[in-house]
Amino acid sequence: MPTNDLNNALTSTNTPADESSRRSLTLLGLGAMGTAFARAWLAAGHDVTVWNRTPSKAAALADEGATVASSAAEAVAANRLVVTILLDDASVREALDGVELTGKDLVDLTTGTPASARARATWADARGARFVDGGIMAVPTMVDVPQAGGYVFYSGSPELFEEHRETLAVPLGTKFVGTDPGFASLHDIALLSGMYGMFAGVTHAFALIRGEEGIKPTEFAPLLADYVAAMGHVIPATAARLESGDYTTGVVSNLAMQAAGVPTFTGTAEQYGVSTELLAPFFALMQRHAAEGGGGADTAALVDVLRG
Amino acid sequence: MPTNDLNNALTSTNTPADESSRRSLTLLGLGAMGTAFARAWLAAGHDVTVWNRTPSKAAALADEGATVASSAAEAVAANRLVVTILLDDASVREALDGVELTGKDLVDLTTGTPASARARATWADARGARFVDGGIMAVPTMVDVPQAGGYVFYSGSPELFEEHRETLAVPLGTKFVGTDPGFASLHDIALLSGMYGMFAGVTHAFALIRGEEGIKPTEFAPLLADYVAAMGHVIPATAARLESGDYTTGVVSNLAMQAAGVPTFTGTAEQYGVSTELLAPFFALMQRHAAEGGGGADTAALVDVLRG
Repeated sequence: MPTNDLNNALTSTNTPADESSRRSLTLLGLGAMGTAFARAWLAAGHDVTVWNRTPSKAAALADEGATVASSAAEAVAANRLVVTILLDDASVREALDGVELTGKDLVDLTTGTPASARARATWADARGARFVDGGIMAVPTMVDVPQAGGYVFYSGSPELFEEHRETLAVPLGTKFVGTDPGFASLHDIALLSGMYGMFAGVTHAFALIRGEEGIKPTEFAPLLADYVAAMGHVIPATAARLESGDYTTGVVSNLAMQAAGVPTFTGTAEQYGVSTELLAPFFALMQRHAAEGGGGADTAALVDVLRG
Repeated sequence: MPTNDLNNALTSTNTPADESSRRSLTLLGLGAMGTAFARAWLAAGHDVTVWNRTPSKAAALADEGATVASSAAEAVAANRLVVTILLDDASVREALDGVELTGKDLVDLTTGTPASARARATWADARGARFVDGGIMAVPTMVDVPQAGGYVFYSGSPELFEEHRETLAVPLGTKFVGTDPGFASLHDIALLSGMYGMFAGVTHAFALIRGEEGIKPTEFAPLLADYVAAMGHVIPATAARLESGDYTTGVVSNLAMQAAGVPTFTGTAEQYGVSTELLAPFFALMQRHAAEGGGGADTAALVDVLRG
């Protein structure tokens, strides 16, 4: 018997119940994301009990090997590990209202705020369950496609996370970011906020060149993509300044210089009939801080200005 | 005599005046960027005649081999190729007011709008000069550092650009983007607009995590940088939709779904005392278009909404 097989046999012999429970779980919520997660676990050979408020969505999964529970309570009773991917936090509360949770390991991947995750953790604790909140950094088409790079932020009970780490790692990558159950959501929201800012800038950029028939969007796109990627160096640089508190040493383009350039941006937008609404607040923030004595500072100084 | 030397000798014999003129130029404006350009040309063995409104800035360059002119007119008279890197378009007009420009090749790297570049091109044409406008996509520390990836957008006279291409390529890379003299500025402003949007998102993201002592900015930064880079795939995808006009086929996260998530973002910002001013306009734009029947569309649809 090769060493690996021996190890596996010993593990199985020593902890058959644990091994088995580690490969079985309950999933509440079969929207696009929940369904993708269920399929990933089924494909990996896990026993998956599913429940959805609208039963029709569970039918296809039954054909693929899932056990369909007729109620959330029945689904939760079937396994120790219970994963929720529901519409919102209110849906989690409703689905689990009155359901016995003692001894359960609850992993809530429903999108919410850090405060709602912390409240749900307190609520789970009062019901005798361990709790981990998660923030999914992927769209359903990235589930079970490792090369797509999608992952889930997890925070809360480290014991729960360690025990179910392998199961949780099946649909998407995992990043545990702390014992505070609000941290997964905070990381999730912060990263998406960065993304939405980039989307706003990209929308403005395309709106400008859209005014010229002589510039093809698909020819302009690589220039924009390369430039935004290159300017991403501002992210580690900003982090370093936030930690040192030094916003003025070695600044290449300070806020006074950048604020002076704003009329060129607004003038160009006006020439092309593009609303400045998406960028105006950042320009105003730069101008305000420059006018209030921060003209020599790096843009990193704006982080704390935004906190008021 | 090796082949390369023979070619050089033949070239020199056949066009000595052209070769010489291609390696000499006049530069007006010695701010941080102008000075960096002058040093790059001097280091590459070019004859550089410089002029600056404040003469003191030229002194150091004289020691490095530059010829210092006592007036803009004298500087312009010295060479066919005249490069301007001045404060703004008004400074260009003032510096060259009444200066003889017939037969000159004017390359204006002063920051301005597409309309000001076009007006300056018409003005140059009326004075018998060829004209190219440029938009510098770099900070001074990137000049003459090829691996830093900085470059200049050029547009206007293709004959001027071709004739002086090698000289122009010395300080930074070159990208010629069309005969319309406004296109270099438009590309410049559009790319920087994308960057400012990204800066706004990054500022908001750091402001959120800044509210938690348990999260170090330098540990969060790589997560944010990787995520923003990964989400850059939206740029070519948006360009393709703008050209096809199809905003609804194969949409993974449509505007209705994204608009529904907005309260999670505003709620999280409120919990951490972070102003939503930077992201609110993009959220409002998504919500507005979703409410007006565009809920099934991709974010690419917002480009034309922004054009009004």
